[in-house]
Amino acid sequence: MGKSIAINAGSSTLKFKLFQMPEESVIAEGAIDRIGLGNSLVEVKYGDGQKYETRQDVNDHKEAIQLMLDQLTELKIITNFDEITGVGHRVVAGGEEFKDSAIIDDDVLKKIEDLAEYAPLHNPAAAMGIRAFKKILPNVLSVAVFDTSFHQSMPEVNYMYGIPYEYYQKFGARKYGAHGTSHRYVASRAAAMLGKPLEDLKLITMHLGAGGSITAIKNGKSFDTSMGFTPLAGIEMATRSGDIDASLVAYLMEKLNIEKPSDMINILNKKSGLLGVSGVSADMRDLEKVQDKNHRAKLARDMFINRIVRYVGAYLAELGGADAIVYTAGVGENDIMIRQEVADKLGYFGIGVDPEKNNIRGVERDLSKAGSKIKTLLIPTNEELMIVRDIERLRKQA
Amino acid sequence: MGKSIAINAGSSTLKFKLFQMPEESVIAEGAIDRIGLGNSLVEVKYGDGQKYETRQDVNDHKEAIQLMLDQLTELKIITNFDEITGVGHRVVAGGEEFKDSAIIDDDVLKKIEDLAEYAPLHNPAAAMGIRAFKKILPNVLSVAVFDTSFHQSMPEVNYMYGIPYEYYQKFGARKYGAHGTSHRYVASRAAAMLGKPLEDLKLITMHLGAGGSITAIKNGKSFDTSMGFTPLAGIEMATRSGDIDASLVAYLMEKLNIEKPSDMINILNKKSGLLGVSGVSADMRDLEKVQDKNHRAKLARDMFINRIVRYVGAYLAELGGADAIVYTAGVGENDIMIRQEVADKLGYFGIGVDPEKNNIRGVERDLSKAGSKIKTLLIPTNEELMIVRDIERLRKQA
Repeated sequence: MGKSIAINAGSSTLKFKLFQMPEESVIAEGAIDRIGLGNSLVEVKYGDGQKYETRQDVNDHKEAIQLMLDQLTELKIITNFDEITGVGHRVVAGGEEFKDSAIIDDDVLKKIEDLAEYAPLHNPAAAMGIRAFKKILPNVLSVAVFDTSFHQSMPEVNYMYGIPYEYYQKFGARKYGAHGTSHRYVASRAAAMLGKPLEDLKLITMHLGAGGSITAIKNGKSFDTSMGFTPLAGIEMATRSGDIDASLVAYLMEKLNIEKPSDMINILNKKSGLLGVSGVSADMRDLEKVQDKNHRAKLARDMFINRIVRYVGAYLAELGGADAIVYTAGVGENDIMIRQEVADKLGYFGIGVDPEKNNIRGVERDLSKAGSKIKTLLIPTNEELMIVRDIERLRKQA
Repeated sequence: MGKSIAINAGSSTLKFKLFQMPEESVIAEGAIDRIGLGNSLVEVKYGDGQKYETRQDVNDHKEAIQLMLDQLTELKIITNFDEITGVGHRVVAGGEEFKDSAIIDDDVLKKIEDLAEYAPLHNPAAAMGIRAFKKILPNVLSVAVFDTSFHQSMPEVNYMYGIPYEYYQKFGARKYGAHGTSHRYVASRAAAMLGKPLEDLKLITMHLGAGGSITAIKNGKSFDTSMGFTPLAGIEMATRSGDIDASLVAYLMEKLNIEKPSDMINILNKKSGLLGVSGVSADMRDLEKVQDKNHRAKLARDMFINRIVRYVGAYLAELGGADAIVYTAGVGENDIMIRQEVADKLGYFGIGVDPEKNNIRGVERDLSKAGSKIKTLLIPTNEELMIVRDIERLRKQA
């Protein structure tokens, strides 16, 4: 059929993954960093572990994309640009506008840009990537896949905050969630592993990476999720605080002599979480290494476990039980001890992992202890695959 | 033995309840409002439903207390001031300093005043009440009973936030909780109703009034609670938002052109919750009346129920089960429908109420459906009784 490319554009980065469709096999993947900052690292991985790397200045996203496509041609990964039949762009904020992925036309692009205030760094970067691709490959089907779309199925009672209603009407102040593409992917894999239709399942999916979110899925649809208006809310993350008493924003601004509220929110996003509590690192692996002799490192990990336990309990209550809980993303796929400790704390609900089965990283596996009432699944995420699948799904619908 | 008085002083109010000890019988209770604002209403209820009321200017707390004591004498409720052998003051914020109620000396009074920044309206008012009583009854044992003390038993992992650790060390930024005296009282009553030692029980106590908080109690001690650094956090309340994404503080300040963070927090405390969502009323009874024809009134109620369900699930997870959940305070004691709806949503955990038993307001009763794995108890709160009991307990210890 052709090749589809999944694009994840940040303000100064561009990541891509190229798939052969409909086989869904990965042909190449890579990244370009420091766009507009000078001395970018251009990386392409392809073939049987082959890797191409170079350093050069890349001035903007258009140049980055041109460079990437030229490099794919030069490495003979593609023969010419016409082989690319679909481009899928990850977009962080879709607001209430986008309840599903969307074929990008001028109107969609404008809406993505209009939603920038919900994701000030991400949406403008995604829009740059989209514009750049449109210029270079004007005739290729281009699709936007939103982090928030999957959560648009949440019922009002779960997405509304206890704030004046007009703040929702006028300013869109509500819960949107994030990581929707990841939660959607692992939910579909969980259904396959359990051998049941997704529509019949209740799942609690846990995307635990540098950012982390937990989603309650009912009948295949997002029912509630731990991230909120922005990704700041929910569980403790690498550098994000997760849930706090909102009055701390005002209290700490006064104590710290901070004038701009956005500066305080910036601290809560970038200097908090595991990093802020431990004072050691934002990386769970570093904390694991020192936790026996560093109280704050252990505390940061224990708080991470505690917040997961709280949300799983809350979502079991909202869903009225669950068929399985699912681990994915960096920490979820690789931190054996955290999965064990969470399971030990959730034993009351009939959740448990088999230590031998759990002694694994990054592969799809049922980790459940024999007789578990609620299964524990490990499912490596694959957002890029969901993106290129969405291209084909929307192509058929178009 | 004598008479003890429980005092609850607000910035412009003074409430009291007079007990005969050790019988713990209520002799009189009353309130004075609009202190310092002119035209105060002075109320005293006593005897068999007798009531005394008058209106007059009351300039400060000392005047209010003098007036109250004079009135109690005039109504022959007390013969002279010497009959009063103990005064207990409710104090909102006790910080980490007060892990139990305390006999008030100069040092304790200073610490209460120093803790004012955790409760800017309440602690200074309590201090005024304490000083006024000390002047009028200098030789009577005077005790401070803190809303936060009961929660000082929370483990670090539950009271710490995912923010830079030094904000805890330097500014005391952590979870303190509130309503501790109420949670403590209903927990002790729950143990009596269940016929088991409190130390052996796991309980989830729900103080649902205009302010609301839910507490996980393990072995008789507070293990976690829904209010946070301040009473803003947790479930949706009459006019408080409860948990929100902290980034909304910055976002809404910009949208609303609010300059002072404390003004935004003020909106979240005073114009949010049931009032803000419904646009109708902060009173649950008003919302119940119109919910069939007013979507936002129903939404506000449904969100209230949802937040209770979330917290009960989270605390069942943290505690590893529970012997009982307990309803108390205005809404908890009187809203039959909300208790029924919460129970229906928590059926998965073996929680259920018997509709006939549940058809009651404000009396101590086991509401559980036959065969419930986790009992549901209704226990009217009595913070004043806890306060006068603490006077006697500390008198013996002194």
